[in-house]
Amino acid sequence: MSLSDATIEEVDQAVACADACFQHFRKSSGDHRANFLRQIKEELKGEKETILGIADHETALGKKRLSMEFERTLGEIENFSKLFKEHDLFQANLDPTDSRGKEHIQMIPLGPVAVIGACNFPLAISVVGTDTISAFVAGCPVIVKSHPGHPQTCQVLADAVYRAIAHSDMPPHCFQLLHGQKKEVTQHLVRHSGISAIAFTGSLTGGSALHAINQERKEPVPFYAEMGSLNPVFALPHAVESGGRELAKDYVQAVNLFAGQMCTKPGALFILQSSITEDFLKALHEAIQGQATLRMLNAEIHGTYEASCLRLEKQIELFCSSSKETKKEKGRIKIFKMEGNTFLQNKSLRAEAFGPCSMLVSVKDENQFLEIAESLDGSLTASLHGTRKDHRLAERIFPILESKTGRLLYNGFPPGVVPGIATHHGGPWPGTTDSRFTSIGKQGYQRFLRPLIRQN
Amino acid sequence: MSLSDATIEEVDQAVACADACFQHFRKSSGDHRANFLRQIKEELKGEKETILGIADHETALGKKRLSMEFERTLGEIENFSKLFKEHDLFQANLDPTDSRGKEHIQMIPLGPVAVIGACNFPLAISVVGTDTISAFVAGCPVIVKSHPGHPQTCQVLADAVYRAIAHSDMPPHCFQLLHGQKKEVTQHLVRHSGISAIAFTGSLTGGSALHAINQERKEPVPFYAEMGSLNPVFALPHAVESGGRELAKDYVQAVNLFAGQMCTKPGALFILQSSITEDFLKALHEAIQGQATLRMLNAEIHGTYEASCLRLEKQIELFCSSSKETKKEKGRIKIFKMEGNTFLQNKSLRAEAFGPCSMLVSVKDENQFLEIAESLDGSLTASLHGTRKDHRLAERIFPILESKTGRLLYNGFPPGVVPGIATHHGGPWPGTTDSRFTSIGKQGYQRFLRPLIRQN
Repeated sequence: MSLSDATIEEVDQAVACADACFQHFRKSSGDHRANFLRQIKEELKGEKETILGIADHETALGKKRLSMEFERTLGEIENFSKLFKEHDLFQANLDPTDSRGKEHIQMIPLGPVAVIGACNFPLAISVVGTDTISAFVAGCPVIVKSHPGHPQTCQVLADAVYRAIAHSDMPPHCFQLLHGQKKEVTQHLVRHSGISAIAFTGSLTGGSALHAINQERKEPVPFYAEMGSLNPVFALPHAVESGGRELAKDYVQAVNLFAGQMCTKPGALFILQSSITEDFLKALHEAIQGQATLRMLNAEIHGTYEASCLRLEKQIELFCSSSKETKKEKGRIKIFKMEGNTFLQNKSLRAEAFGPCSMLVSVKDENQFLEIAESLDGSLTASLHGTRKDHRLAERIFPILESKTGRLLYNGFPPGVVPGIATHHGGPWPGTTDSRFTSIGKQGYQRFLRPLIRQN
Repeated sequence: MSLSDATIEEVDQAVACADACFQHFRKSSGDHRANFLRQIKEELKGEKETILGIADHETALGKKRLSMEFERTLGEIENFSKLFKEHDLFQANLDPTDSRGKEHIQMIPLGPVAVIGACNFPLAISVVGTDTISAFVAGCPVIVKSHPGHPQTCQVLADAVYRAIAHSDMPPHCFQLLHGQKKEVTQHLVRHSGISAIAFTGSLTGGSALHAINQERKEPVPFYAEMGSLNPVFALPHAVESGGRELAKDYVQAVNLFAGQMCTKPGALFILQSSITEDFLKALHEAIQGQATLRMLNAEIHGTYEASCLRLEKQIELFCSSSKETKKEKGRIKIFKMEGNTFLQNKSLRAEAFGPCSMLVSVKDENQFLEIAESLDGSLTASLHGTRKDHRLAERIFPILESKTGRLLYNGFPPGVVPGIATHHGGPWPGTTDSRFTSIGKQGYQRFLRPLIRQN
C-alpha cells in the first residue's frame, strides 16, 4: 500500500475519471445510492478495530473518543441513506401551484467534488464525513485529499468505500483518494477546471490560502471552507454574580475539550471588570487545576500550539495555566488575561491558537461590551450568559452577536450539542467562506446541487 | 434633481447609513414589509405615465413594450408582498422532528445589498426588480447603482420607493439610489466592506470585471451576476425535415425579439449539414425579410453591436441580413454561417454580440453534434428540437446540455415563457457567477439569507 504523494498527472487523471463517471453516477436511482451508503457503513463496521487502531496510532485522540467519533460517523451515513426515502431530495423549493404545467424544475448535481478534511476529526470530518457522503447523496463523484496528519487512517477508510463501490455496483471512480504531504497536490486539485465544488475543513491559514487559489479560477465554483473561529463568550454581570463558580468551571472545560482542538473552542471570555472578583479568579484557578492535561493530536500540532502561546506570552499576561508537563505533546491549558482596550486595539491577538488556551478579557463597562461585540469578526458560535436581570444589556448585545455567528448559545458553552442530522454548522467569515450553507448535518447535500428547468 | 456621479464619500456614507438602519429594518414584521411592498407598487402605479415617458425617452424600447414591462414589474412586487402570508420565509429547511427542542433555526438577512441593474429591462431588472424587492423581503437594506443608460428612469423609480418608505414608516435608508456614469462608483460599492451581497445583471465583460473586484475582497460575500450567454439551439435532423420552415421562422423571431437585446437570445443554431437544404435556407431568408428592423436601446449599444458584427464579418460568412437601414440605431438582423469545425476551433466567435445576430453552424455529423455540445460554456438556456425519430441522438445530447444550462427547452426557443413567480433564471458560468440561485422569480430572496441557530 503506497501512500506516496500523487503526481500532478495522477491528480489530472483522477479528475478526468471522476468526470467520466459523473453522468453514470448521477443517474443511479435513490435506492441504489441509499444502498451504496449502507454498504459503506457495513464495510466500515467490519473494519472498526483496524480503523480505530490506525487512527489512534496516528492521532493520539485515544480509543474512547475515536470510538465515539466512529459511531457518530456511522450514524450520519445511516441518516443520509434514509434521506432518499424521507424526502424528494431533488425537488426544487417551489409550490406546485406556481408551475405552469410546461415547466419541470429539478435540482441536479454540480459535478465532481473535492473534499479536504480536518486534522481534529480523522473519522467524522474526513474521508467519509458529511462532505463526501452528502456529495454522494447529491450525485457527485468525490475526490478526497487525504490528511497529512493521518494518511493511513484515510487509506483504510477509503478502502472501505472502494469495497462498497464494488459490492453495490457503482462506477469505480465515483470515489477516489489522493495522498499528498506536499501542498501542491491539494492546490492543483482546488484549481482544477474539472472540479465543480470544493469542501474544506481546517485552519484559517489553510482555508484562506485555498480560497485565494479558488478565487483565481476563470470559472468560479463554490468553495466551502469551515475554518477556525474565536467563538466569543459574553458573561453578563448578574450571570457571574449568581453563578460565577459554575461558569468558570464550564468555561475551562469547554476550552480543554479534546485538548482545545475543536473548531468551536471558546477563544475569549468577555467579562465586566467588576465581575472579576477574587472569588471568580479562584474558581478559575481551581477549574484549571481540576482539568486533566490532554495529549494533542500530534507533535507538529503540539509544537505549533506551544509557539502560539509563547508569542501571546510576550504580548499579554498569562493569567494561569495547568501545571507544567514534562510529557511530550500534552497541551497545557493556558488562560491569558487582558483589558478590553488591549483586545480592541490589537487585532492580531484574536488569531485562533489551536489548542487549550483562551483569553479572559476584562471589560471596562457596558458600552465596551457593545464596542467589543461590534468589533468581532464572524464565528461559528457566540455565547451569552445572563440572568433576567441582565435582560436590558443582553437585548443590546444579541442583535450584534447574531450578525457575527452561525450559532448563538444562551447560557451555554459551545459545542453544547452533539452534531446531528439537523445541525447547522457554519457562520460568517472567517468562520466559513459561505455562511449560507452548513458543513455538518443533513442540509449539507444542498451545497452540491443547482436548479435546472426542463421545459415542454 | 441632480444626477451627478456619487463621490467616493457619498458611496461610503450610503453604505454607513444602510448598515445603521439594518437592525431596525430587519426587525420590521412581515406585515409591515408586505405593506411597504404594496406601497411601492401604489406609488409606481400613480406615476405610470411619467415613468413610461422617461423610460421611452431614455431607451427607445417603445411605450408598448415598456408598459408590458411596467405591469410585469408591478405584478412581481405584488407577488412578493403575498409571500409573507403564504410561507414562513424565514423558516430553515429542516424537519421539526429533527430538532432536539433546545435549538431554534431561522433564516436571517445578510446585511446591506448592492444592486446593479441591466440596460435591457429599465423597469423590470432595475431599481425595483427581483433583486431589490427580494432583498427587501429578506430584510436587507438596498443600495441601487443607477444605470448610465437610463439614469432618469432610475431616479423616478427611486422617488416612488422613497415616497413608499415615508408612507409606510420604514427607515429612510433602507433604500438608496446612487448615480454614476463613471465605473468607479460601482467599483467602490462592490468592493465596500459594508456590503453583504451584490446582485448584478448585465454583460459578461461588466460582470466579469466586477466579479474580479469582488474576488479581491478580504471577506468574501455572495456576488450574483446574471450575464450574457450563447443560448445554443440544437436542431436535430427529423425536426428540420418535418418542420424546417416553422423552425427557421421561430428562430429568427427569437433572435430579433426586442432587437436581440435579451439575455436569452439564441446565439447559435446547430444543424446537420444535410439538413441545410435549399428549402431551409429559403425559409430562413424569408423569415429575416419578414421581420421588422427594430431600434436598439441607445446609440452606444447600437454602435457596439455594429462593431461586433463588423468583427464577425471579417472572420466568417455573413449568410443573410435584413435590408440596409439608413435610420440610426436600428439593429439589422444578421445571421452568420460557419462550419462545425470553425466553431470548435475559434472560441472567440462565441462571445455574445448584444443585438439581433446569431450563428448558423453547419454540423458535419452526429458525433460533431456531441463534440460541440461538450465544448460549450454554460448558458442560461439551451434548446433542442427533435421528433420521436431523433430520440436516439437526443438521448445522447440531453445529459450534456443539462450540465451546461439552467433551462433546457424541448422544441421551443428561449425565453418561451414570461418570467413569473416560479421562474428559475440562472445557469452555469458564464451565464451566471452562481448557478445555485435565480435572479428572477420568487426564490430570489434566498440569495440574501443565511441560517442562524439560537440555542437554549
